[in-house]
Amino acid sequence: MEKPYLVGIDVGGTNTIFGIVNADGNVLLKSAVKTGTHDDVNLYINDVYNELIPLVNEIGGIEKIKGIGVGAPNANFYSGNIEYASNLKWKGIVPFAKLMSDKFGLPTVLTNDANAAAIGEMTYGIARGMKNFIMITLGTGVGAGIVIDGKLVYGHDGFAGELGHTIIVRNNGRSCGCGRTGCLEAYASANGVARTAREILEASKGESLLRNISVDIISSKDVHDAALRGDRLALEVFEFTGKILGEAFADFITFSAPEAIVLFGGLTKAGDYIRKPIVDYMEKSVLPLWKGKVKVLFSHLKGADAAILGASALAWEI
Amino acid sequence: MEKPYLVGIDVGGTNTIFGIVNADGNVLLKSAVKTGTHDDVNLYINDVYNELIPLVNEIGGIEKIKGIGVGAPNANFYSGNIEYASNLKWKGIVPFAKLMSDKFGLPTVLTNDANAAAIGEMTYGIARGMKNFIMITLGTGVGAGIVIDGKLVYGHDGFAGELGHTIIVRNNGRSCGCGRTGCLEAYASANGVARTAREILEASKGESLLRNISVDIISSKDVHDAALRGDRLALEVFEFTGKILGEAFADFITFSAPEAIVLFGGLTKAGDYIRKPIVDYMEKSVLPLWKGKVKVLFSHLKGADAAILGASALAWEI
Repeated sequence: MEKPYLVGIDVGGTNTIFGIVNADGNVLLKSAVKTGTHDDVNLYINDVYNELIPLVNEIGGIEKIKGIGVGAPNANFYSGNIEYASNLKWKGIVPFAKLMSDKFGLPTVLTNDANAAAIGEMTYGIARGMKNFIMITLGTGVGAGIVIDGKLVYGHDGFAGELGHTIIVRNNGRSCGCGRTGCLEAYASANGVARTAREILEASKGESLLRNISVDIISSKDVHDAALRGDRLALEVFEFTGKILGEAFADFITFSAPEAIVLFGGLTKAGDYIRKPIVDYMEKSVLPLWKGKVKVLFSHLKGADAAILGASALAWEI
Repeated sequence: MEKPYLVGIDVGGTNTIFGIVNADGNVLLKSAVKTGTHDDVNLYINDVYNELIPLVNEIGGIEKIKGIGVGAPNANFYSGNIEYASNLKWKGIVPFAKLMSDKFGLPTVLTNDANAAAIGEMTYGIARGMKNFIMITLGTGVGAGIVIDGKLVYGHDGFAGELGHTIIVRNNGRSCGCGRTGCLEAYASANGVARTAREILEASKGESLLRNISVDIISSKDVHDAALRGDRLALEVFEFTGKILGEAFADFITFSAPEAIVLFGGLTKAGDYIRKPIVDYMEKSVLPLWKGKVKVLFSHLKGADAAILGASALAWEI
């Protein structure tokens, strides 16, 4: 193969990670830059370029690269734009694929970060062989990639699958980064979980290891650590989060009747602490015809590699 | 063409309507039987047979028919079964396509009634040329047919698109025929609208034409008639129903980003009385990126013909 490699880039709210991938799905080389350093997207792309080109040269230069696949929040597969991403510094419509392609001289395809994760799971991960599943990414935000009949759902405008912004609490819901209230993301994102912890701590007088941490900086990892040590309030945080997710999944199932819902991201590190309430509430809430039929699976792919692999897999079809 | 005709059958909660359709999408002959007369599905199929065969003979006999397409509640395209349909008398799993095919000696395909409606709109109706839309049928129940990339979504098990059973009121919701509470169907079905009317009449002391009707028999048609005469309470009923539907649609859009949501059924006869609150609340609730982008359309197909055409269109692919 004249051009045996792909570049996969995952643009996260905090970090951008990227790597060079071969046809077997191995991430040969990888690195990262901060996403939020520049208001000007061109300066950011310079950062990526300066960090990525040395890796490219290591594997034989730019002529060995078939193309670049990018996963990013609010990214549009059809247009190649990132549009109004509330978690990124660049406002409005950013012609990201074009800017990358101009800078690197390589064809660039762009999709939603969660769609990229879904492609990664379908190509290399736990969803291999599945034709119908929903990928949910639980990180700074809550993203979704919906696969129906083996294909990503993009919809009429390319933005399908914004399941983090379904309204899960319809009255007096938490405010969300999107400007509305009650979105799934406001509860099940890393910040959402931390906020739940703070709310439960404030509403209760019970003892908790979490009281040793300032309420303003409690993270979902702290909750997990406390749960591991049997902390009752920490378990309550997972119970609440699992309920929100399980009830949301019951609704998602009515839409596309998937074989599985695949979860990826920080929250999945809590393992059965979060899996059990999710499954319990999903089974309790779902329409009888789907009881016991839909799997809830956690991704096995390693964090950074999964995102890079997923983004790169997009570029095979260039 | 040796077999130039199709049979389309729509199995409704109350009536079963059927007809013979030609390749131009004209319903040449049609008739109906009651759905709920027999607990034994075989006796029901006898009724259909006895009513349908004279029509078949009129167009030249059974050898002129290519196949039968059936739309029915809880029908499974993959298996040909009707499974646990709460609006029908036949309980459990009914191998409907096989029974029909054995009785008529014709290949029979079965799908959800709302999927059949979606196929009808895509083939002959307002969704011609659309690749991504959601069909919502508002009748005895609330059904949905989801079209993505020009294809009906069946999901892993063939039951995708049960959007009438997404939970729209999460706490203290109305009980639904499915055994759960808070489903869209409990609010936006014909019974749901009548129940809303009764609740508003009971909670208010305001004058209303609806007070001239016994609260136990108020129908969505009565509400419409009163609204036409400027009745404030009737308008409130549509406002409430439109809010429930509009907020639900805002969530549906996050899933498949459709070009349009197409409505069919009794409630659409209320025209702008129901369209305006639906659109207003949908636009108010939807994620900013979709504001002003998704059309809400009412089917133009005539009731009985639409259902027959949709079901028959399925059978072209036999």
